[in-house]
Amino acid sequence: MELKYDANGLIPAIVQDEKTKDVLMMAFMDREAVKRTLETGTTWFWSRSRKEYWNKGATSGNVQIVKKVMYDCDQDTLLVFVDQQGAGACHTGEWSCFYRELKG
Amino acid sequence: MELKYDANGLIPAIVQDEKTKDVLMMAFMDREAVKRTLETGTTWFWSRSRKEYWNKGATSGNVQIVKKVMYDCDQDTLLVFVDQQGAGACHTGEWSCFYRELKG
Repeated sequence: MELKYDANGLIPAIVQDEKTKDVLMMAFMDREAVKRTLETGTTWFWSRSRKEYWNKGATSGNVQIVKKVMYDCDQDTLLVFVDQQGAGACHTGEWSCFYRELKG
Repeated sequence: MELKYDANGLIPAIVQDEKTKDVLMMAFMDREAVKRTLETGTTWFWSRSRKEYWNKGATSGNVQIVKKVMYDCDQDTLLVFVDQQGAGACHTGEWSCFYRELKG
Protein backbone atom coordinates (compact mmCIF):
# COMPACT_ATOMS: atom_id res chain seq x y z
CA MET A 1 0.00 0.00 0.00
CA GLU A 2 1.41 3.37 -1.03
CA LEU A 3 0.24 6.61 0.57
CA LYS A 4 -0.40 9.57 -1.72
CA TYR A 5 1.59 12.64 -0.75
CA ASP A 6 0.69 16.04 -2.22
CA ALA A 7 2.87 18.17 -4.51
CA ASN A 8 4.89 19.29 -1.47
CA GLY A 9 5.41 15.71 -0.29
CA LEU A 10 2.93 16.11 2.56
CA ILE A 11 -0.11 14.22 3.81
CA PRO A 12 -2.63 15.65 6.28
CA ALA A 13 -2.83 13.75 9.58
CA ILE A 14 -5.88 14.11 11.79
CA VAL A 15 -5.17 13.29 15.43
CA GLN A 16 -7.98 11.79 17.49
CA ASP A 17 -7.85 10.83 21.16
CA GLU A 18 -8.60 7.12 21.36
CA LYS A 19 -10.48 7.19 24.65
CA THR A 20 -12.60 10.34 24.31
CA LYS A 21 -12.75 10.22 20.49
CA ASP A 22 -12.17 13.99 20.48
CA VAL A 23 -10.48 15.31 17.36
CA LEU A 24 -7.47 17.11 18.79
CA MET A 25 -5.63 18.66 15.85
CA MET A 26 -4.63 18.35 12.22
CA ALA A 27 -1.07 18.72 10.99
CA PHE A 28 1.07 17.53 8.11
CA MET A 29 3.46 14.62 7.86
CA ASP A 30 5.93 13.83 5.14
CA ARG A 31 7.30 10.36 4.42
CA GLU A 32 9.98 10.70 7.11
CA ALA A 33 7.49 11.93 9.73
CA VAL A 34 5.21 8.95 9.00
CA LYS A 35 8.21 6.64 9.41
CA ARG A 36 9.26 8.27 12.70
CA THR A 37 5.66 8.15 14.00
CA LEU A 38 5.40 4.42 13.31
CA GLU A 39 8.89 3.68 14.65
CA THR A 40 8.81 5.76 17.83
CA GLY A 41 5.12 5.37 18.73
CA THR A 42 4.74 9.13 19.20
CA THR A 43 3.54 11.69 16.67
CA TRP A 44 6.00 13.45 14.37
CA PHE A 45 4.98 16.20 11.95
CA TRP A 46 6.58 18.45 9.40
CA SER A 47 6.24 22.11 10.31
CA ARG A 48 5.60 24.07 7.11
CA SER A 49 6.33 27.40 8.80
CA ARG A 50 9.47 26.38 10.68
CA LYS A 51 10.57 23.87 8.02
CA GLU A 52 11.60 21.27 10.55
CA TYR A 53 10.44 18.04 12.10
CA TRP A 54 8.39 18.36 15.18
CA ASN A 55 7.86 15.66 17.81
CA LYS A 56 4.58 16.77 19.36
CA GLY A 57 4.89 17.37 23.08
CA ALA A 58 8.65 16.82 23.23
CA THR A 59 9.16 20.14 25.01
CA SER A 60 5.73 20.64 26.68
CA GLY A 61 5.32 17.07 27.87
CA ASN A 62 1.98 16.83 26.05
CA VAL A 63 3.14 13.78 24.11
CA GLN A 64 0.77 11.80 21.90
CA ILE A 65 1.25 8.05 22.28
CA VAL A 66 0.20 6.42 19.03
CA LYS A 67 -2.33 3.60 19.33
CA LYS A 68 -3.00 3.04 15.62
CA VAL A 69 -2.78 4.86 12.30
CA MET A 70 -5.59 4.59 9.75
CA TYR A 71 -5.59 5.82 6.14
CA ASP A 72 -8.56 6.74 4.04
CA CYS A 73 -10.09 5.32 0.85
CA ASP A 74 -8.10 7.76 -1.31
CA GLN A 75 -4.88 6.99 0.61
CA ASP A 76 -4.22 10.72 0.91
CA THR A 77 -5.24 11.41 4.53
CA LEU A 78 -4.21 9.80 7.83
CA LEU A 79 -6.20 9.41 11.03
CA VAL A 80 -3.91 8.87 14.01
CA PHE A 81 -5.45 7.48 17.18
CA VAL A 82 -3.46 8.57 20.21
CA ASP A 83 -3.40 8.55 23.96
CA GLN A 84 -2.99 12.29 24.56
CA GLN A 85 -0.74 12.99 27.54
CA GLY A 86 -0.66 16.10 29.70
CA ALA A 87 -2.94 19.10 29.37
CA GLY A 88 -3.94 18.57 25.77
CA ALA A 89 -2.94 19.04 22.17
CA CYS A 90 -3.32 22.78 21.63
CA HIS A 91 -0.55 25.30 22.19
CA THR A 92 -3.20 27.66 23.65
CA GLY A 93 -3.69 25.31 26.59
CA GLU A 94 -6.97 23.92 25.26
CA TRP A 95 -7.47 20.16 25.12
CA SER A 96 -8.38 20.30 21.40
CA CYS A 97 -7.38 22.87 18.81
CA PHE A 98 -11.03 22.94 17.69
CA TYR A 99 -12.46 24.94 20.58
CA ARG A 100 -14.26 27.71 18.70
CA GLU A 101 -17.48 27.49 16.72
CA LEU A 102 -17.92 29.04 13.29
CA LYS A 103 -21.14 30.97 12.95
CA GLY A 104 -22.79 32.05 9.73
CA MET B 1 -13.04 36.01 12.48
CA GLU B 2 -11.39 35.26 9.16
CA LEU B 3 -10.57 31.71 8.09
CA LYS B 4 -7.21 31.11 6.44
CA TYR B 5 -7.49 29.50 3.04
CA ASP B 6 -4.43 27.97 1.36
CA ALA B 7 -2.77 29.15 -1.87
CA ASN B 8 -5.53 27.42 -3.85
CA GLY B 9 -8.28 29.05 -1.80
CA LEU B 10 -9.06 25.83 0.05
CA ILE B 11 -9.41 24.80 3.68
CA PRO B 12 -9.43 21.17 4.88
CA ALA B 13 -12.67 20.09 6.54
CA ILE B 14 -12.71 17.06 8.81
CA VAL B 15 -16.17 15.51 9.12
CA GLN B 16 -17.07 13.81 12.40
CA ASP B 17 -20.33 12.07 13.25
CA GLU B 18 -21.79 13.87 16.25
CA LYS B 19 -23.35 10.84 17.90
CA THR B 20 -20.66 8.17 17.42
CA LYS B 21 -17.76 10.66 17.27
CA ASP B 22 -16.32 8.63 14.38
CA VAL B 23 -14.19 10.63 11.98
CA LEU B 24 -15.88 9.95 8.66
CA MET B 25 -13.85 11.75 6.02
CA MET B 26 -11.72 14.75 5.14
CA ALA B 27 -12.34 16.94 2.11
CA PHE B 28 -11.72 20.52 1.02
CA MET B 29 -13.98 23.53 1.08
CA ASP B 30 -13.47 26.90 -0.51
CA ARG B 31 -15.14 30.11 0.67
CA GLU B 32 -18.29 29.38 -1.34
CA ALA B 33 -18.53 25.77 -0.04
CA VAL B 34 -18.26 27.03 3.56
CA LYS B 35 -21.04 29.53 2.83
CA ARG B 36 -23.29 26.86 1.28
CA THR B 37 -22.59 24.47 4.18
CA LEU B 38 -23.63 27.07 6.75
CA GLU B 39 -26.64 28.23 4.72
CA THR B 40 -28.08 24.84 3.70
CA GLY B 41 -27.15 22.83 6.82
CA THR B 42 -25.63 20.06 4.69
CA THR B 43 -21.99 19.61 3.71
CA TRP B 44 -20.62 21.15 0.51
CA PHE B 45 -17.10 20.58 -0.73
CA TRP B 46 -14.91 21.60 -3.62
CA SER B 47 -13.80 18.62 -5.67
CA ARG B 48 -10.20 19.21 -6.74
CA SER B 49 -10.32 16.40 -9.32
CA ARG B 50 -13.70 17.22 -10.87
CA LYS B 51 -13.32 20.98 -10.29
CA GLU B 52 -16.90 21.38 -9.14
CA TYR B 53 -18.98 21.83 -6.02
CA TRP B 54 -20.18 18.68 -4.43
CA ASN B 55 -23.14 18.40 -2.04
CA LYS B 56 -22.23 15.24 -0.14
CA GLY B 57 -24.93 12.58 -0.47
CA ALA B 58 -27.08 14.54 -2.90
CA THR B 59 -27.17 11.57 -5.30
CA SER B 60 -26.55 8.65 -2.90
CA GLY B 61 -28.87 9.85 -0.15
CA ASN B 62 -26.00 9.67 2.34
CA VAL B 63 -26.48 13.31 3.30
CA GLN B 64 -24.57 14.89 6.18
CA ILE B 65 -26.75 17.14 8.30
CA VAL B 66 -24.56 19.80 9.86
CA LYS B 67 -24.84 20.18 13.63
CA LYS B 68 -21.98 22.62 14.18
CA VAL B 69 -18.76 23.77 12.54
CA MET B 70 -15.63 24.33 14.60
CA TYR B 71 -12.35 25.94 13.50
CA ASP B 72 -8.92 25.40 14.96
CA CYS B 73 -6.44 27.65 16.75
CA ASP B 74 -4.66 28.47 13.47
CA GLN B 75 -7.99 29.15 11.71
CA ASP B 76 -6.84 26.97 8.82
CA THR B 77 -8.77 23.73 9.45
CA LEU B 78 -12.47 23.03 10.01
CA LEU B 79 -14.12 20.29 12.04
CA VAL B 80 -17.70 19.71 10.93
CA PHE B 81 -19.98 17.79 13.28
CA VAL B 82 -22.73 16.05 11.33
CA ASP B 83 -25.60 13.65 11.63
CA GLN B 84 -24.56 11.17 8.93
CA GLN B 85 -27.57 9.81 7.02
CA GLY B 86 -27.84 6.53 5.12
CA ALA B 87 -25.14 3.90 4.85
CA GLY B 88 -22.19 6.11 5.66
CA ALA B 89 -19.73 8.61 4.30
CA CYS B 90 -17.46 6.52 2.10
CA HIS B 91 -18.06 5.87 -1.59
CA THR B 92 -16.84 2.29 -1.01
CA GLY B 93 -19.87 1.58 1.17
CA GLU B 94 -17.94 1.82 4.41
CA TRP B 95 -19.29 3.98 7.23
CA SER B 96 -16.00 5.89 7.51
CA CYS B 97 -13.36 6.47 4.85
CA PHE B 98 -10.73 5.51 7.46
CA TYR B 99 -11.34 1.76 7.49
CA ARG B 100 -7.80 0.49 6.87
CA GLU B 101 -4.87 0.45 9.26
CA LEU B 102 -1.38 1.53 8.30
CA LYS B 103 1.28 -0.88 9.43
CA GLY B 104 4.99 -0.17 9.72
